[in-house]
Amino acid sequence: MLEELKRQVYEANMDLPKYGLVTFTWGNVSGIERESGCFVIKPSGVEYEKLRPEDMVVVDLEGNIVEGSLNPSSDTSTHLELYKAFPKIGAVVHTHSSWATSWAQAGRGIPCYGTTHADYMYGEIPCLRCLSEEEINGAYEMNTGRLITEYYIDKDYMAVPACLCKNHGPFAWGKNAKEAVHHSVVLEEVAKMAARCEQINPEVKPAPKELLDKHYMRKHGANSYYGQKSAK
Amino acid sequence: MLEELKRQVYEANMDLPKYGLVTFTWGNVSGIERESGCFVIKPSGVEYEKLRPEDMVVVDLEGNIVEGSLNPSSDTSTHLELYKAFPKIGAVVHTHSSWATSWAQAGRGIPCYGTTHADYMYGEIPCLRCLSEEEINGAYEMNTGRLITEYYIDKDYMAVPACLCKNHGPFAWGKNAKEAVHHSVVLEEVAKMAARCEQINPEVKPAPKELLDKHYMRKHGANSYYGQKSAK
Amino acid sequence: MLEELKRQVYEANMDLPKYGLVTFTWGNVSGIERESGCFVIKPSGVEYEKLRPEDMVVVDLEGNIVEGSLNPSSDTSTHLELYKAFPKIGAVVHTHSSWATSWAQAGRGIPCYGTTHADYMYGEIPCLRCLSEEEINGAYEMNTGRLITEYYIDKDYMAVPACLCKNHGPFAWGKNAKEAVHHSVVLEEVAKMAARCEQINPEVKPAPKELLDKHYMRKHGANSYYGQKSAK
Amino acid sequence: MLEELKRQVYEANMDLPKYGLVTFTWGNVSGIERESGCFVIKPSGVEYEKLRPEDMVVVDLEGNIVEGSLNPSSDTSTHLELYKAFPKIGAVVHTHSSWATSWAQAGRGIPCYGTTHADYMYGEIPCLRCLSEEEINGAYEMNTGRLITEYYIDKDYMAVPACLCKNHGPFAWGKNAKEAVHHSVVLEEVAKMAARCEQINPEVKPAPKELLDKHYMRKHGANSYYGQKSAK
Repeated sequence: MLEELKRQVYEANMDLPKYGLVTFTWGNVSGIERESGCFVIKPSGVEYEKLRPEDMVVVDLEGNIVEGSLNPSSDTSTHLELYKAFPKIGAVVHTHSSWATSWAQAGRGIPCYGTTHADYMYGEIPCLRCLSEEEINGAYEMNTGRLITEYYIDKDYMAVPACLCKNHGPFAWGKNAKEAVHHSVVLEEVAKMAARCEQINPEVKPAPKELLDKHYMRKHGANSYYGQKSAK
Repeated sequence: MLEELKRQVYEANMDLPKYGLVTFTWGNVSGIERESGCFVIKPSGVEYEKLRPEDMVVVDLEGNIVEGSLNPSSDTSTHLELYKAFPKIGAVVHTHSSWATSWAQAGRGIPCYGTTHADYMYGEIPCLRCLSEEEINGAYEMNTGRLITEYYIDKDYMAVPACLCKNHGPFAWGKNAKEAVHHSVVLEEVAKMAARCEQINPEVKPAPKELLDKHYMRKHGANSYYGQKSAK
Repeated sequence: MLEELKRQVYEANMDLPKYGLVTFTWGNVSGIERESGCFVIKPSGVEYEKLRPEDMVVVDLEGNIVEGSLNPSSDTSTHLELYKAFPKIGAVVHTHSSWATSWAQAGRGIPCYGTTHADYMYGEIPCLRCLSEEEINGAYEMNTGRLITEYYIDKDYMAVPACLCKNHGPFAWGKNAKEAVHHSVVLEEVAKMAARCEQINPEVKPAPKELLDKHYMRKHGANSYYGQKSAK
Repeated sequence: MLEELKRQVYEANMDLPKYGLVTFTWGNVSGIERESGCFVIKPSGVEYEKLRPEDMVVVDLEGNIVEGSLNPSSDTSTHLELYKAFPKIGAVVHTHSSWATSWAQAGRGIPCYGTTHADYMYGEIPCLRCLSEEEINGAYEMNTGRLITEYYIDKDYMAVPACLCKNHGPFAWGKNAKEAVHHSVVLEEVAKMAARCEQINPEVKPAPKELLDKHYMRKHGANSYYGQKSAK
């Protein structure tokens, strides 16, 4: 089942090492088919060189394995919480990409210092608190997901489609697997440039709101004019 | 029309990912034929892997699309302003290359700390102010171009063939597409070394004027002696 | 003799340049067969491009060359001390990998700032003191090994399977050559992220103990649930 | 003439981009045959992709072009001064490699923080002063060479076979072209690690003299025991 989605999720997983976002097995992509309420996710701990489309595991929104002989990613419960709370998303990516993880370890959100960031994410990419001892010792991965979804409860999760979990690493999402990986690449790039930017000018201030508005709307608003009409 | 120029501009665009200056579609090169008053530019938002010479869009200096079925780069109006104000240039490059963009985000010009810089750019590479709210909400890309050309109104735009736009990123130019890309690579390299140089010695001062004169003239003056005579 | 082990150790040595951990000949991997009390190690100063499985040198735990026409690595005595004191290990890796060596030169252990680190190493990766003048001028490589084994005398060497030697560089180990190289890659990655993390937030604190416990146990405890059962 | 030397110097020049030490044409290697008093050097400004062994230019120690239809490197006079003052060297390398040039721009010598450095260079790699206005406007490249040779007049130029020229970049040398390039790679690597090391611990002190002695002698002294006897 879900052969086409498995292929897309497989290819998106393979894009993680291609874009330099993962070392070893430190990342996973999932994608959901909303009609069936099932999502497809990378199996846990399988090396990218050995991964095949048919290894993808199918899981339903109660967390039951619907198809697949391998264990799904240990982060499956986090993905699941995001799918339940964010109805517009079609895919979730988790990595330990180096610069984004450095910000997560530092416990700081990534300020929006320029248009590279503003083209994809409207304002600061938040860094969420570390889970409490109780949350960690309980349903850890589910609680990670809930921390994220609770943060976005009064915010537009499509306007800032990525966040950092303190002492852990980044999660990103999008309308499909390709876009979610794209957001992960953007996140890593802006994390790198923001760190260097603060090194070059420790007094730097975030970009003004009108520039954020302009660039975000240039790509995303009703009057967007970036790219080709047919490609939207 | 302009088949040879299209090929040159296509190849210069393809050099951007080759030299590590762009991620995804975050960059564009254009080149002008002064006789016809038309320039050739990358189409907007097309992935580099899929780009073909015949996809290049031909635009005139009033901004009309003369040939091409795709939308030109969303930065076309910026390129156009540079062509109108800088009669000696044959090409313009815009990227979000990582180190140069970090300086642009930091709002600082890149001081000339050594001969690598001085061989190509005579003195500091300026960082221009962020546009005002009015300029952003008006003809944003045209205003970006005008900010650049107004800065150079009393300066030699061929002596410092690159600048940074605050909170945005770099623009570079040259007598043809190959040279403009070359300047973009130089810019990225000196941006990287200047940041590291300040980290190694926070009290560092720019290189003395006589060294700048020597290296710039060694390559560019009437008595230049770098390279092969036939290659000039 | 030990043909299969020679092949494994050869391949693990070749993984060092593949993962960007060595320049020139600046690294070596060895692996031991506990029954015979012999270990296999890279020959000294041989370039990786020219290395062959049959060049591996077989050494016993008294330091005698049992087989091989080439000199073993100049670090052989350090490896030997680790094998004698750490009965559970099957392999040792030494490199001058760039980030880990920078921490070693800085004389600081690498704090555990997040789960990437905690998944493999339980807490800070220690930086051991520089040897005394007497120790350096005596049996230098043996004394390096003893410094390491004395540090771990009251600690679990399998829980933190890597350390730094001040002014020198990192050593890592594992149950076999593949795992020891894996730990060297993890060490380099967490060394890089910890340095950047401190740059982003100079006030950063190590990750809380409960997070370390959770992640280490998720992969290593009796109730571990990362990966596939068959792969453990 | 000097066909074998031309091939060696050609290959050493091609190693510069291979090891990531040069962008475009920003580097050059030369090698000398002491009997004839002639040295072979890269032509000026020729791209590495187009370089051929037969393009190498033969120059004598008075600076006359003995063979070759292309202009020799604009840095030829610097190489020449080193050959005249350093009788034991067989080759010279100049690059603008990124980390070493950052130290040169910062005007600081590279302290010896560890054994990677001590294995090849005995103590700090010096940063020489910027030339005076008179020296720059006179025989600039010759004066660069004389500044270097005067610094080493009372020092062992084989013990520290590299230096930095302030606001410019590094020079390295060795007994042949391969070794000189090897030293350039070491220089870049230790420049990188020293900068990061100071970032990790701003209070870091150079490695103790006894460790420098040990590592330098392990590789270079009469009782050296690194590598294979046949390879020395």
